This record gives sequence, structure tokens and C-alpha cells, in this order.
Amino acid sequence: MNSFGKLFRVHIFGESHGQVVGILMDGIPAGIPFSAEDLTKDLDRRRSGAAGTTPRKEDDIPLVKSGVFRGYTTGAPLLIQVENKNTRSRDYTELRKTPRPGHADFTAFKKFGGYEDYRGGGHFSGRLTTGLVAAGVLAKKMIAPAKVNATILEVGGSTDIEAAVQQAIREEDSIGGIIECRIRRLPAGIGEPFFDSVEAVLSHMVFSVPAIKGIEFGAGFAAAKMRGSEHNDNFISIEGTTETNHAGGINGGITNGNEIVFRVVVKPTSSTHKAQKTMNFVNEEMQELKVEGRHDTCIALRVPVVLEAAAAIAMADLMLQGQEIERINQPKDTIT
Amino acid sequence: MNSFGKLFRVHIFGESHGQVVGILMDGIPAGIPFSAEDLTKDLDRRRSGAAGTTPRKEDDIPLVKSGVFRGYTTGAPLLIQVENKNTRSRDYTELRKTPRPGHADFTAFKKFGGYEDYRGGGHFSGRLTTGLVAAGVLAKKMIAPAKVNATILEVGGSTDIEAAVQQAIREEDSIGGIIECRIRRLPAGIGEPFFDSVEAVLSHMVFSVPAIKGIEFGAGFAAAKMRGSEHNDNFISIEGTTETNHAGGINGGITNGNEIVFRVVVKPTSSTHKAQKTMNFVNEEMQELKVEGRHDTCIALRVPVVLEAAAAIAMADLMLQGQEIERINQPKDTIT
Amino acid sequence: MNSFGKLFRVHIFGESHGQVVGILMDGIPAGIPFSAEDLTKDLDRRRSGAAGTTPRKEDDIPLVKSGVFRGYTTGAPLLIQVENKNTRSRDYTELRKTPRPGHADFTAFKKFGGYEDYRGGGHFSGRLTTGLVAAGVLAKKMIAPAKVNATILEVGGSTDIEAAVQQAIREEDSIGGIIECRIRRLPAGIGEPFFDSVEAVLSHMVFSVPAIKGIEFGAGFAAAKMRGSEHNDNFISIEGTTETNHAGGINGGITNGNEIVFRVVVKPTSSTHKAQKTMNFVNEEMQELKVEGRHDTCIALRVPVVLEAAAAIAMADLMLQGQEIERINQPKDTIT
Amino acid sequence: MNSFGKLFRVHIFGESHGQVVGILMDGIPAGIPFSAEDLTKDLDRRRSGAAGTTPRKEDDIPLVKSGVFRGYTTGAPLLIQVENKNTRSRDYTELRKTPRPGHADFTAFKKFGGYEDYRGGGHFSGRLTTGLVAAGVLAKKMIAPAKVNATILEVGGSTDIEAAVQQAIREEDSIGGIIECRIRRLPAGIGEPFFDSVEAVLSHMVFSVPAIKGIEFGAGFAAAKMRGSEHNDNFISIEGTTETNHAGGINGGITNGNEIVFRVVVKPTSSTHKAQKTMNFVNEEMQELKVEGRHDTCIALRVPVVLEAAAAIAMADLMLQGQEIERINQPKDTIT
Repeated sequence: MNSFGKLFRVHIFGESHGQVVGILMDGIPAGIPFSAEDLTKDLDRRRSGAAGTTPRKEDDIPLVKSGVFRGYTTGAPLLIQVENKNTRSRDYTELRKTPRPGHADFTAFKKFGGYEDYRGGGHFSGRLTTGLVAAGVLAKKMIAPAKVNATILEVGGSTDIEAAVQQAIREEDSIGGIIECRIRRLPAGIGEPFFDSVEAVLSHMVFSVPAIKGIEFGAGFAAAKMRGSEHNDNFISIEGTTETNHAGGINGGITNGNEIVFRVVVKPTSSTHKAQKTMNFVNEEMQELKVEGRHDTCIALRVPVVLEAAAAIAMADLMLQGQEIERINQPKDTIT
Repeated sequence: MNSFGKLFRVHIFGESHGQVVGILMDGIPAGIPFSAEDLTKDLDRRRSGAAGTTPRKEDDIPLVKSGVFRGYTTGAPLLIQVENKNTRSRDYTELRKTPRPGHADFTAFKKFGGYEDYRGGGHFSGRLTTGLVAAGVLAKKMIAPAKVNATILEVGGSTDIEAAVQQAIREEDSIGGIIECRIRRLPAGIGEPFFDSVEAVLSHMVFSVPAIKGIEFGAGFAAAKMRGSEHNDNFISIEGTTETNHAGGINGGITNGNEIVFRVVVKPTSSTHKAQKTMNFVNEEMQELKVEGRHDTCIALRVPVVLEAAAAIAMADLMLQGQEIERINQPKDTIT
Repeated sequence: MNSFGKLFRVHIFGESHGQVVGILMDGIPAGIPFSAEDLTKDLDRRRSGAAGTTPRKEDDIPLVKSGVFRGYTTGAPLLIQVENKNTRSRDYTELRKTPRPGHADFTAFKKFGGYEDYRGGGHFSGRLTTGLVAAGVLAKKMIAPAKVNATILEVGGSTDIEAAVQQAIREEDSIGGIIECRIRRLPAGIGEPFFDSVEAVLSHMVFSVPAIKGIEFGAGFAAAKMRGSEHNDNFISIEGTTETNHAGGINGGITNGNEIVFRVVVKPTSSTHKAQKTMNFVNEEMQELKVEGRHDTCIALRVPVVLEAAAAIAMADLMLQGQEIERINQPKDTIT
Repeated sequence: MNSFGKLFRVHIFGESHGQVVGILMDGIPAGIPFSAEDLTKDLDRRRSGAAGTTPRKEDDIPLVKSGVFRGYTTGAPLLIQVENKNTRSRDYTELRKTPRPGHADFTAFKKFGGYEDYRGGGHFSGRLTTGLVAAGVLAKKMIAPAKVNATILEVGGSTDIEAAVQQAIREEDSIGGIIECRIRRLPAGIGEPFFDSVEAVLSHMVFSVPAIKGIEFGAGFAAAKMRGSEHNDNFISIEGTTETNHAGGINGGITNGNEIVFRVVVKPTSSTHKAQKTMNFVNEEMQELKVEGRHDTCIALRVPVVLEAAAAIAMADLMLQGQEIERINQPKDTIT
């Protein structure tokens, strides 16, 4: 299912080399100030350009097609789409024979029986995160005054991020990284006891972002080596403030009012200019494969804003469920 | 929401010191051989008893109340419940004043406004995983011939698990651990491109299990230090078999036919006999707290079977969506 | 799927001649006063006994198994079940050969492949409405101060209901009827523009009640003969009060603050003592069938309380979505 | 929620006088032949033009933006949108003061707090059924070889439809009608026992269509006057064929293999050129209102194709759930 959420619902669509990518959002409260310009900053953060990101130049001009009237959300579905302009035509026949390792070429074929649009990853392309980022802009407005912020902790095993990227470029290889995301000023009481714990819903959304292969909350995997007396976060105020935050702001699946903290690992970009040995599915022989074309040396560099969007979308949905967000933002008194 | 799943749906209910805990399942195919005895083995694995687990003796006799007729599932909702017998009455007034660090006492109050059944953790209790394990037994039958298997990798930072537990008992403290789960013999093509990627759905379910604070697939967090050329799993057969399995059996959110591999971290049990300093929410002063009563030194010891259940439930739901499981298991030819 | 609702979710289970019938509810706000005694009145209304209803004596003692603590709902799932005691054992082998006309015998076989519990209608039995009525009691509390009230308009084509029933008993036949349901004191603004219009959600729930074959809102089918100038309900106050109520309280799928009015048709009970000609599925010959056993001459007599429950459940769900119901009913100030 | 369905999911969006109306579909099997031209016939049927329908000329050129590749559905979300070109600018200030009787003007204000796009009915406009009809074209392909067909039975109380329309035009008034829909060649066994009975799901979808105020299956409301011995449909073949079809092809909520038959009532168009007396919400005085502009004398004339779409969408979703439709239509053998 290409949808996420119970009350704030996002529906993703599009293909990398098709006509458009975009997102349809439902359940946004009425009365939130919004215009297409509000999308610029986060879409720019997501876009390529820096060293280590793909040289494909994406204009990414977002078109707001419905759900906004005179500068405010209406409460009706809000459609945002971006036209694909900078796509390169080429012959995929050869490429198709050797599904790229680490990519969805093979699994997409298995799932969609050969009818999938395989050009540039098609519906599986990271380009679809454009829609997520756009939805994140709305979600961030919804969860205000809470703030979500993601930063890169390391790439390729190094905290000197620029150096690590340059090294990988020289090697014609790709690298991964670790991103940390924090959400401040959330009230206590968000989330559900079991299946919709904050960790469950956040991770569900976060693993919808391509290339992410792990997530940990608070102390995370380090907790495996801690004693309970050390891991427990003692309360130091009746508002629920704790001395430490090993729980990452979540107890029993529910926010405790402290900062939510989680980290994700982004795998190295699967496309690399380096030659790899893999199977030719037509002649069933092993062959050498070099993935041509434009791609990111380190896709992790572009993930923070996507992760923020994912986090904001998930929290917005949980907060609507808990009535921490109102359905109408400052309703008008009279019909005229 | 206390429900999980789209086609195979599990609904959890009950409280630790209430009348029952249990699970209601919907969407199970008709015609699967099943009786209450099938539950014994996994429920026994979950139950306490070994060193490092709580001395509370739980009989856990599962009652199958609906959905089974003459030894087969009927396709109608299947209700399993376990009566709570070995609960200790006591006065919770004092305990209530100092919400236990690391527990849901405080967050439950925030969410349910003081109406929550707080005895023994109430609806948040790990005892509710009894229902998950029961559902897991059905799910395992549904996904057959695929097999799911979870094992403890380490506890308290050590692979000598017995020694680590004994040490923690001596310290009157608690420890966490890391569990690995593998699913073999799944076909390629299960899962959805974005929001219902296998990682997304598995992690959603896995984080519904209390005490889990992190999950990683395949190479997981180690991928952050790898090169793409190293991380990519080269195909070595046209069935999709790969030379390595850094992806943990999942590409683009969809199974590739290799083994699914993931690991979770279980935090140290929050209840420990060791004295902790925390806030008294009535007089607003810091005080010392010792959590009395029966509890696990290392809850991670009991997690493998719960993790298997979680994994099987998630995969069963995805496989029903992908029609990899049929709605009727060997339909009868004639009405009589 | 045996579930209904988005935020107030009811999950039905059980079989007519199995161990139990019941309902599991999720999403009930915390803090609503409730005890098993509150169920008595509506369950009594549903139960058989009057002339025209089945002589099967159902004790229907509802057991509240979870989700209630010290006289209040906790916000956790609330399980109610009723044990089946007064079931008659008999040999169904003969009966199975001739699926009863108008019943689900044949369709259940087609759907569940012969594994269905066919005794007394099994999971399809009208006895499962016991669970609906129980859920209705909670839903009525949730939507207060709104009130829902259903009454019988006619049975067997006559408004002299007692006479019509006596006549049908004499004929050893069965009759249907028309029930009207009204919901007063609902605020304007409930419902959704398209797929979750009030009519859509109410009718979805109402057609879950066995034997109902039609529904109409406000003027209903009579609107087909009206002029627009006659059908339109003119506003006579700025609160939205209208002069007439041909719309049945709903415009554009959303409540307008006037009374919601709808009517349903209940088909005549399919089981009748009168001999019918039908197919023997074993020897493929037409044969005479007399449905033995206890059954209702006019099931419509028992429908009003079920219809009220259905209406209240549907409205409670829509009102939670629109935040017209709060998640905690009078939260407590302090944790103790 | 502006979405319908569990496995075949349609998401509607747009406003009458905004940029677009359209629909996003998810869960369509891969491999179904499809191009924009396939939409023409049904969109033409929905479009205005005949006597009794609005003179607004809608071009309704449907743009297929995603989910189709080389003439086949890909299994990814399929987006269809239609640009709004023939909208008339005007001043709505005066109109806004007197919410039109029978319209959603007032209820939309109550729900969306004054932020709704009220021009021409906005998101509530019947123009949004364009998207439904487009989705219906896909749904009809999915449920093949089953066929759905809707016809007008009467308008304004008369079966001489042309005469009735001419009469209403002369009176400057509007009229309603009754439409019948039949679905042939469906297999037995579709649907769910309780909440997702075929009647429940069909009616949910059907009441999403504006102006429909009642639905009845098979004998429908006439069943209230029938005896059980008369209403029961006797089986005459072991395929489940019945002698009569008073049940409308559905027993116990599940298809029995006979034709599905249902009828709906369409209320008279709320907009009429005839003067009406209603409330001015600004000065709180009763005033005369004449709804200017282009509108349908008898909207029922345009409903059949919308009803067919609604029925096909609902059945496609149920059939995917029951695995009566495969996820890939003729999968390819090899990846190239």
C-alpha cells in the first residue's frame, strides 16, 4: 500500500522517469497558512548539488493542485506534484539483463511481473522522497510548536564528512552514514500502548525511506550493555523531565515529554561506478557490471530533510489521533 | 490502536492484574489444522522459570473461544484468552506516588488521565505478549513452509549468557541483550515499495514488543562504515540467490528470496531491586525508590519467541496481501 | 473483515453454537462510567420472549473481561463476551444436504470451503448481534447528550403489529417489517465529504445487521417523486434549523444539526415452518424442506435495539474523528 | 477520509472551481491493458449535454500521470486528473450570506470553519464524480468477466423520462429519480459475514455519490410486505442458481452467484431556478433566493455511469480481498 497514516494520510505516487512524482495528503486541518513557496527551503535541502550528490539537476518546482484556498489549507485533500523534466532517454534493454545488486530491479520484477516502469528505478526511485519532503512541510506546521531536526553524525565511518566523501569519490565507490533526528517540545502522552507505539509508528514511516536499514531510539543498541540502574531515566520534575534520556523520550510506547531522539543508518548508495560481478539473467552467466549514469556518492547527505519529514508525518498522525492537534486552526465565527 | 495488520489482523487486550489477557485474530484462512495444544510449546518458551526470569508462576492455559471447529480454523475470528490467576493483591497507593523510572506509569497517566488500570503495569504489561505468542503460532502455520527462528546473541554485553545473568543477579541489577531473528524459505516479491516495505512492517510490529529500542536489517548499523562495492549483494543465480546478504534479504522494501535477517536490542528490565533516586509526584521531592516484587533480571531471555511471533505475524499479513497465502487451505469439494 | 470503525473500533466474534459470542472494542475514551449492569436493559430488549420471537431462551449474561477499572473505562480495549448455554445438540448431516433458502448456508460454504461452523448459522447467526448491542451501550454513552431511538413502523405490511404477528404464526410463515431510527441533538459538522459521508458510514454499519435489505434517509425513496423546490429544506435559523427535514439531517454527507432520520427494511425471517421446495446438493434433486427448530416469526421485532446500537457505533466513530468526543472524559489532575 | 477501499484504494481530490479534479488509485494489479482513451466512453456518459443536464461544457480530458507503462498498469499508484477549464469567475460574497438549501454550503462551513473552497460547491461538487467514473473504468477491467450495468427506472415519478424532464424544465424546477444497477457473472463467495457484507460495502461506496438518499437490494423495501415463504429464493441448481432473486444475489452478506441487483434514489437537484424562501445568515432575516447559474434539471440522468463505477470499485476491492482477482495479470516469465 502506498499510503501511510490513520488520520493524517499521505499517498505517494509517481516514477523517476515518468511524468510526475508527488504526494496526495488527506486529513490536514483546515486553516493552516500555506503556499507553494513554503516548500522551497526543504525541497532545496533534499535536492542534489553538493559534492557527493548526484549531478542530475532537478528543478523540482512543486505544483499545489488542490486543497488550498486563499492562502490556507481547506481541510480537503492537498495534492502536490512535481513534473519530471530532466530525464535522460536511453536504451534499458542491456541494463535489464543484469538487475543491479542492491537495487529493487529484481524484486520489482518479482512483485510486478515485468510490468513495472524500470526506468531509473521507476516507482522505487529515491526521487519519490520529493513527495515525502513536501508532506513533511505540512506536517511540521501541524505539529508546531514542536520542532524536528536531523543532522548527519558520520559518513563512511568518519565524522569528517567532507573528507570522507572526497575519498569515496576518488575511489569511485559509495558510502553510507548515520543520521540523528530529534524532536523537541512534544507533549507527554502521544502514542499508543502496543501496536502504535511511537517507536512502531516512527520506524514504520522511517523505513519507508529508501536506503535506511536500521533505527535505534535513545541509548539504542548501546542499551544492550547497560545495567537497568544505569539505563533508567530518573524523574526530576513532576512535568516528567528526566535526568538522562536513555529512553529517547518514550516510555511504554508513549512520549514522556522529553526530547525524542533516534538514529538511523543509511546504507552506501547501491549504484557505484566501480565494477561489480553479478549474474546476467538472460544467459545465466556471471558478468562484470558498471552502473553508468548520475548517482550519489553518499545518499546519506540528502537524508536529513527526508528523515525530518518522515518524523513529522508520523508524529502529526499520532497527534491527530490523540487530539493534540485540532481539526480546524482558528475557525471563523461567521459564514461570510 | 490495539490492532495490527491489514488482512491478518490481531487485536490485543487485557491487563496484567485484570481478569484476562488475550488476542483476537481475524483473517486467518479457513482449513488450517489447529488446537489449543499447538500453543503449548511457544507459550512455554515465553513463560518464566529459568534463572534471570521472574519467579511469578504463570499457568498460561490458553482458552480457544471461537473460530475453530472440528480441529480446523473456520475463517471466522479466533479468540484466545488466558485467565490471570497468580496475581498478588497489594496496596498501590504508595507506589503510585513515585512513577517507576523506565516504566509506563507516568506516560499511561498522561494518556489515560488517571483511569488506567495501573496494577502491575496494567495494559502495558509484558504479560500481554502472551497473546502475541499465541497469534504467532497461527502465523507460523500460515507462512509455512517458511520458518522463523530467533536466538539470543548476547546479554549484558556478553555472549556467556548464563554468567552474565548470574552476575546481574548478584548485583541486584538488570541487564539487556541483543536478539537475532531469521526467516528462511520466503519467496521473493513480498512487501510493498514504500510505506509497507518489509522493513517498515516488521519494525512496526517488532516495536510493539515492550523493551525493544532498536532494530537493524542485514548489515544494519555496520553498513554505515561499508563501501557500496562491499555492501552490495551480487546475484549468483537467477532465482535471486546472492553471494552475501548485507541487505538482510530485502531490496527496495521487498523480499529477494534470501534469508531475512534482523537484530533487535532489548533494554535492561526497568524494574530492579537496586535503589534509585526519583521524584515523588505528590510532595515533589526526590526520594529513594526500590521496586519490590517479582521481576526479570533479563527480560531479553524471554524475547526470542515473542520476536518470532512478531515476525511471523507481520509476514503473514504481507503474504496475504500479496496472495502468497490462500484464503482457504484445501477447500472441500462438496457441501456435506 | 470482522471489524468496523476508524477510531472507535468494534471487533465481533463467536458462533451461535460455539462457546461464546461477543465483541472487543477499542478506542473508547477513558473515564466513562460503566459496569456490566449498564448492558442489561438493551440486551433484554434484544432478547427473545415476546410473541413472534424465538422461544430459545438466551440468558445472555454479559461478562466484561477487560478495559474497565473501578467503575470506569480505562481507554484500553474492552472485551465483552456471552457464553452460549442453551444450545441444542443435533445431527446436522441431513440438514447440510439442503442449504436453507435465504440463509448463509450455501454462501458460507463457498467462502470458507466447508470449514465453517454451520451449527445454527455459526458465525453468521443473528445471535452475534448481542455483541453489537453491547457495543451500542458504550457508543450511546460516548455520543451523549445525543440520543438515538428506533421504533417499528410496520410489520408484514401492517401497522397493527400484534395482529400481523398472530396472523403469521397461524400461517406458520414469517414476516418482515420497517424500522425507523432517529438521532437527536447531534451537532452540525459531523461526517466527511465523500467516502465517509454520514449516510455511507451509517449504511455500512446498518447493513452489517443480518436481514436488513434497504435503507433510506429523510424523504428517502419518496424523493424520487418530489420537485427540488419541495424537497429542499429551507433554513429558518442561523443554527441551521430547517423548516422541513427531507434531507434526514444530512447535507453533502455532513450533519446539519437537525434530527437524523432513516428507515430500514427487515426481510421476513428466512426460517419458516412452512414447507419449501429446494435443491438437495447431494443427489441434485429438488426436495421439500421444512426448517425445524426454534425461530422468530418476525425478526424485525428484535431489530430496533440493534439498529440503535449500529447507529450509535457509527456516529461515535465519526464524532471521534471530528473531535466532537474527547479522548479522556474528565481527566484527573494528579497521578494518585 | 477521502479514501475508499482496503486493497483497491481510491483517493479523491479536487474542487469544482480549483485547478483540477481527479483520483489516485492504489492496489490495481499489474499487467492490465490501459490507456487514457479507455476513459472516454464512460466520461462521455457522465458529462452534461442532454436536455435536463447542465449546459456547463466540461471538456474533461483525463490525464494519466502515473502508474501506466507501455500500455499496461504497473501495479504502482495510478493518478488521473482533469483540469478545470470552463469555470466562471464571479463574486460569491452575496451568495455566501444565504447558504443554499439542500446544498453543503452550511455543513461545509461547520466542518471546515470557513476555510473551505466554496466556489461552485468546491470539494463537495458533483464534478468530483469524474474521478469516480475514471476509477470505475479500471475497476470494471479488474472484475471482468463480471459486468455492471445501471439504468434509469424513472424520473420525477414517471417512466416517460423525456416528458418528465421537459415538464420540469417548463416549471423551472428540478426532479429526482430511481436508478437500478445489476452486476452479472460474479462468482459466489464474495464478501464478508458482518461488517464487510456486500450490501455494507456497496452502500458505503454508493452513498459517497452526491444526491443519493436511499438504497435497496433485491426485493428491497417491498420485502417488508412479503411472507418468508414468498421471499426465500429456492435453489434450483448446485451452482446456487435460485428460482427467484429477492435477495438481490446476496445471502448472509456474501454473493450467491446470482445477479446482484440494487436500486438507489437520487434526490431532485438542490439548485433550482425557482425562488425559495430561506435564511440570510448575516442579517438573520428570511429572504427569497434564486440559485443562478448552470445546473441540472435532473441530475439522476447522469448518475447511471457513476453508479456503475461505484459498484465496480466496491466489488473490485472485495474481490481482491477474497483473491478472486490476481495481483498480476499474466506475469512475464523473464526479466527482460
